[in-house]
Amino acid sequence: MEWKVAADRIRPVSQRWLDTAWQRLDDLTKPRRSLGLLEELAARYAAIREEASPRITGKAVFVFAGDHGVVDEGVSAYPPEVTALMVNTFLAGGAGINVLARCAGAEVHVVDIGMATPLPDAPGLIQRCVRRGTGNLRREPAMSREEAEQGIEVGVEMARTARERGVSVVATGDMGIGNTTPSSALFAALLPAAPREVTGRGTGLQDEALNHKVGVIEAALERASGESNDPVSALAALGGLEIAGICGLCLGGAAHRMAVMVDGFISSAGALIAMRINPAVADYLVFSHCSVEKGHRVFFEREGLRPVLDLDMRLGEGTGAAVAMQILEDGVRVYNEMSTFADAGITPGA
Amino acid sequence: MEWKVAADRIRPVSQRWLDTAWQRLDDLTKPRRSLGLLEELAARYAAIREEASPRITGKAVFVFAGDHGVVDEGVSAYPPEVTALMVNTFLAGGAGINVLARCAGAEVHVVDIGMATPLPDAPGLIQRCVRRGTGNLRREPAMSREEAEQGIEVGVEMARTARERGVSVVATGDMGIGNTTPSSALFAALLPAAPREVTGRGTGLQDEALNHKVGVIEAALERASGESNDPVSALAALGGLEIAGICGLCLGGAAHRMAVMVDGFISSAGALIAMRINPAVADYLVFSHCSVEKGHRVFFEREGLRPVLDLDMRLGEGTGAAVAMQILEDGVRVYNEMSTFADAGITPGA
Repeated sequence: MEWKVAADRIRPVSQRWLDTAWQRLDDLTKPRRSLGLLEELAARYAAIREEASPRITGKAVFVFAGDHGVVDEGVSAYPPEVTALMVNTFLAGGAGINVLARCAGAEVHVVDIGMATPLPDAPGLIQRCVRRGTGNLRREPAMSREEAEQGIEVGVEMARTARERGVSVVATGDMGIGNTTPSSALFAALLPAAPREVTGRGTGLQDEALNHKVGVIEAALERASGESNDPVSALAALGGLEIAGICGLCLGGAAHRMAVMVDGFISSAGALIAMRINPAVADYLVFSHCSVEKGHRVFFEREGLRPVLDLDMRLGEGTGAAVAMQILEDGVRVYNEMSTFADAGITPGA
Repeated sequence: MEWKVAADRIRPVSQRWLDTAWQRLDDLTKPRRSLGLLEELAARYAAIREEASPRITGKAVFVFAGDHGVVDEGVSAYPPEVTALMVNTFLAGGAGINVLARCAGAEVHVVDIGMATPLPDAPGLIQRCVRRGTGNLRREPAMSREEAEQGIEVGVEMARTARERGVSVVATGDMGIGNTTPSSALFAALLPAAPREVTGRGTGLQDEALNHKVGVIEAALERASGESNDPVSALAALGGLEIAGICGLCLGGAAHRMAVMVDGFISSAGALIAMRINPAVADYLVFSHCSVEKGHRVFFEREGLRPVLDLDMRLGEGTGAAVAMQILEDGVRVYNEMSTFADAGITPGA
C-alpha cells in the first residue's frame, strides 16, 4: 500500500540544510535569534523543502469527517447529526475553518472518510468513505485493521495530490461528534498515560459526564489491551477514521517534503500515530496550538514538543492550524525578504 | 496640550457593546467560546469601535526612534550609531518590521522623535525630533518634563492623523540602542519592582555586563527618587523619547477609539506610563506578545495582563505587534463572516 511506502521513505531533515538556513537567518539585520519561533519555523521549513530560498507555493487544509459509534455511550454534548450539519456548513463556506483558511490564503477540502450518512456530491467535498461510522469502541473494535489502513491511505493520497497541485504546506482538520473520546483513548494507549490525565470536557461536558467518559475510555482500553504496542492496531481498536486520515496526511506530507501544520487535540492523536509509525515524521510536523482540551498539554510535555500558539482554542476543524499557517508564512517571508547586515552596513553584535 | 485632552477623554469600553458582541459570537456555529482569544479580541474590538459589524479599515505601525545618553555607561551590546543605520534599513523596507508589516497588510511610519543625528527627509520618515538624544539617566534627568510632554504629544498626533486617514488599528514600535535600560528603570519605578527583577540582557549582554546594567538602573532610581509618583515625571527622569511617543500613541489611539497593538518590552514601558496616566486606556491596548527580555513577564503578572503570543521574540521595532495584528484580524473576520447556528440548522449545545 502507498502509505507503507510513504512511511518508510521519511527521513529526518538534514543538518546540512538546517545549518545553511541558520547561516542565512543569522546574517539578517536583527540581533541573533531575536525573532524566536519565527526563525525556527523558517529554518525548519527550508530544511523540509531543501531550498536555499524556500517559498510557500500553496496551502491546503484537509478536514477529515467521521462519525463514532461510541456516541451511543453518551460521551458528547452534541448529537451525532451535527457532524453532517457542520460538514454542510464547511461546504457553504460559513464555518470557522472557512473564515480562518481565507485569512491564511489556504484552500479547504472536506473529506468524508467515515460519516454515518452519505452526502451528495458537492464542490469541495471529497468522497472517500471507508465505512459509515466506527464501531462503539467501548464494546468492539472501532474498525478493522484493514479499514484503519484504508483511512491512512486516504490521508496519504490527499498529501500526494496536493503536492501535485503545487501545495507546499498542508494542515490537518477534523470534524466528528464524539471524537475527543477516541483521541483520549489513543493518547492513553500510545503515550502512554492514565485515561483521566488525557480526558477532557470536549465541547462542554459537566463533571458527572466527564467521569462517565473516563470510565468508557478505561473500559475500551481494557477490552483492547494488547493492541497498544502497534500504532495501527491501536488506531483500529480505539480510533476514528478522521484520525486515520490525519495520520496519513502527516505521513504523506512528510514523504513529499511538505510542512504539515497539525491542528489541536484530535489532530495530535493522528500525528502521534504517525510518529509511532516513523519517528522521523516529527521533523515535518508543526504543532499549531495548545488546545484547552485537557490532555493536549500532557501530550506536548511527554513528547517534548512546543506548540506555536496558546490561544485557548478548542474548536478543531483545522482552525488552530490555519491561524498558525500565518505565523509560518511570516517566518518564511522574514527569511526571504529581510536585508542582511552587509546590506545595512552594520557589524553584527551579539 | 492635546495629550491631556486625549488622556482625559478616555473611558472604559462599554459593557453594553461587549454584551452585544458576545451575543453575536455565541450565535456562531461553534461550541461557545471555543475560539478562545480570537473571540475575546473580536469582542473587545467591537466594543472599542462601538460597531455591531466592526471592520478593520486600516492598520499602521509607528516606529519611534530615539537615542539614549545612558549608552555612555556601556549598557548595550551595540554601538549607538546602529539606531540611525537601522532607521535607514526601515526606510529602505528591509528590516524585520517592514517584512512583518507587509505580512499584516499594515503601513509603516518611522518617527524621528529623538535620534542623536538628524536624517535627511525621506518617504516614510516623520521628522518630530524633540531633542537629539536623551541625557545619561544615571547622572542626570533623561529629559525635562516639557520634553517628555512634547514626546507624548507626538504620539497623540500620530494617532489622530492615522485616524483621519481611516486607520482603525495602530501598532507601537521602537528603535533606540540602549532602550532596554530606560524601560527597565521605568518598570522598576512604576510597577514598582526591584531593578534586578525587571532588567535583562537586551540585545545580548553577558553576566558581568548585566550586573553593571542593574547597578546603573539602581543608581538612576536613587538619583530620581521622588519622581516615581507621577508617571510623566518618571518618564522625564528615567525614560526615553521613543517611550514617550509610544505612551502618546496609546493615549491618542484610545481617545480616537482605535485598538492599539502594543509590541514588546520597550513598548510595554510606554503603555505602562499611559495606564498610570489613565487606567481606562488598558481597554484599548492589546499586548501582542511576551518578550524573552526578563521583566516583561513580571510586568504581565503584576498588571494581570495576558499577551496574545509567546514566540521568544525580542527584536522590538513593532515586530511582535505586526504578527499579532493578524490574530486580531482573524478574530474580527470570524466575528463578521461565520454563519450562525440558525443559518446552519443546529440547536446550540454547550
